[in-house]
Amino acid sequence: MKKIAVKASKPYEVLIEQGIIKNCGKLISDVTKTRFAAIVTDDIVDSIYSDTVISSLEESGFRVVKFVFKNGEPSKCSETLNRIYDFLAENNITRSDCLIALGGGVVGDITGYAAATYLRGLGFIQIPTTLLAQIDSSVGGKTAIDLPCGKNLVGAFKQPELVICDPLTLKTLSPETVSDGMAEAIKYGMIRSSELFGIIASHSIENYFDVIDDIIFRCVSIKRDIVENDEFDKGERMLLNFGHTLGHAVESFYNYTKYTHGNAVAVGMHMITEQAVKHGDCEKSALEKLDAVISSYKLPLVTDAPVSELISLCSNDKKCESSNINAIICSDTGISSIRKMPFDEFRKYMEA
Amino acid sequence: MKKIAVKASKPYEVLIEQGIIKNCGKLISDVTKTRFAAIVTDDIVDSIYSDTVISSLEESGFRVVKFVFKNGEPSKCSETLNRIYDFLAENNITRSDCLIALGGGVVGDITGYAAATYLRGLGFIQIPTTLLAQIDSSVGGKTAIDLPCGKNLVGAFKQPELVICDPLTLKTLSPETVSDGMAEAIKYGMIRSSELFGIIASHSIENYFDVIDDIIFRCVSIKRDIVENDEFDKGERMLLNFGHTLGHAVESFYNYTKYTHGNAVAVGMHMITEQAVKHGDCEKSALEKLDAVISSYKLPLVTDAPVSELISLCSNDKKCESSNINAIICSDTGISSIRKMPFDEFRKYMEA
Repeated sequence: MKKIAVKASKPYEVLIEQGIIKNCGKLISDVTKTRFAAIVTDDIVDSIYSDTVISSLEESGFRVVKFVFKNGEPSKCSETLNRIYDFLAENNITRSDCLIALGGGVVGDITGYAAATYLRGLGFIQIPTTLLAQIDSSVGGKTAIDLPCGKNLVGAFKQPELVICDPLTLKTLSPETVSDGMAEAIKYGMIRSSELFGIIASHSIENYFDVIDDIIFRCVSIKRDIVENDEFDKGERMLLNFGHTLGHAVESFYNYTKYTHGNAVAVGMHMITEQAVKHGDCEKSALEKLDAVISSYKLPLVTDAPVSELISLCSNDKKCESSNINAIICSDTGISSIRKMPFDEFRKYMEA
Repeated sequence: MKKIAVKASKPYEVLIEQGIIKNCGKLISDVTKTRFAAIVTDDIVDSIYSDTVISSLEESGFRVVKFVFKNGEPSKCSETLNRIYDFLAENNITRSDCLIALGGGVVGDITGYAAATYLRGLGFIQIPTTLLAQIDSSVGGKTAIDLPCGKNLVGAFKQPELVICDPLTLKTLSPETVSDGMAEAIKYGMIRSSELFGIIASHSIENYFDVIDDIIFRCVSIKRDIVENDEFDKGERMLLNFGHTLGHAVESFYNYTKYTHGNAVAVGMHMITEQAVKHGDCEKSALEKLDAVISSYKLPLVTDAPVSELISLCSNDKKCESSNINAIICSDTGISSIRKMPFDEFRKYMEA
């Protein structure tokens, strides 16, 4: 088993091992005193993993209740959240009990947010079942729901008590969903580790599973390092937004229908890096390597959306402070920096 | 001007001065870099104070937007919250801007909660305009909304950037609303300061205003001391619940229609103290003094609700950990302790 200790305001561990989900009851009982757990999951994950998780919890003496909502981003809304709150109240969940987020990013985000806010906070455990959730959203304590007018506009910083990553769960994902998560893995390589980038680049969507434990371990380690330095997203953590400001614009331009998050981030990473090369801020070879790896994971490099409109959408990104943009630029694979620029300058940079 | 520095995870000051609300713009500009503020208030407070506050903010260079909702506890719900979020999004409020809660406890609680969660947190200022809000809810960082199945079930700990207390605002309150707040002032005297208790006891609802600045200062100082030791409500802060477990039961028994919070807390303080005297846990003279002061502020001592049903309702109090009750017992004015007892023992204690 690989273990990563995260020293956030509340320390916790990320455990990575194939098949680990079968032992989750024992692992969870080691980090909490309660023996009453509420699982929150979506209908697809429920049909595959709930029985395994519940059996394991019951074997470790837990009483378990379960809330299931419909799979997909539209569920990450205040209506589902209110239904989760009602479910917790009906089951008399107290501050000493715990929630278990079993699923991908949507499940983790909304369950974590419910755990952050119900009774002003109770413990929660992440059991991420997608690559995106395992390497990104389950670690670092960002939780959120969407509003009708924008994604992740309401949220909280809430660290889990434990993250249980079972790479075998990726075997039940479609190749497209794996690719979607791999965009974030590529991002970690670009911003912080040419070694990780090399491992990803020397594999493809066909054989990535041979090195998946190592990829997850390295991605989570990078996120851990960055989050430990900047838990509340005031500085270094912005590096994690590489490809994301433009990526969010791409998602938003198509009303979140045409591009998944990972696909949009792939486009965003290519766009900003292409401009960085033009401005002499990035090695041309780095762009070539980035483009090659994006393509080998069947992710897109470009979009039909007009650049000028995408840039306008960037100004609505909630991460902008007033009229400045914190552009994340990689000068080579593994090396990134934050460049704060006025919005107009960002537009010029992108339209050059 | 009286100043109280609160050293929470994020330090801030409580300022107390008659007429201070007219200078709020300057005071707020000293604690925030933004010059864009969103006021959240209710329709009654709006009609009395918004113009003054907006003028002062504009004089200090602020651009101001305002959201007004209907006065009263039923507004402290997810529907109002979602309308506040939409309002913030429509006005492009960013993380560097600030919210201003102008009003009583309901306004402070829901605005603070919106500030805790919109964009995962932005700064907010409290301008409490009721006695209850000035001495209790505006300090300490507890924010919340109600669910259909219970009060304050969803919330966050969120410290304000500044609290501006203008005792002159109490002049626009009904005597009943002042009494409502005075129940909490009596509570502070009971749990921590016989001196404060004496000051309150030597006045009444007719002439309390002569010593109001001092009462507010002393109450906030006590709350500050307790909250600094226990920001996240794991121990000492429970002392603030004196009279509240039973008080919440009284409110709940009548579906929050017959008793205001302060009235219910007055009944709760009397009930638990009467039992404490019977068990030899409290001086009889302390009960007499408590009853006298409760009566002199036109607050009730008893309720028609059957004790056994009130006790049953206590088990649903969210502050219970599983089947234990943390009963707060005063052995004399100014001296309190937390007694953790199994629920059955609490029932016996109360029914003796």
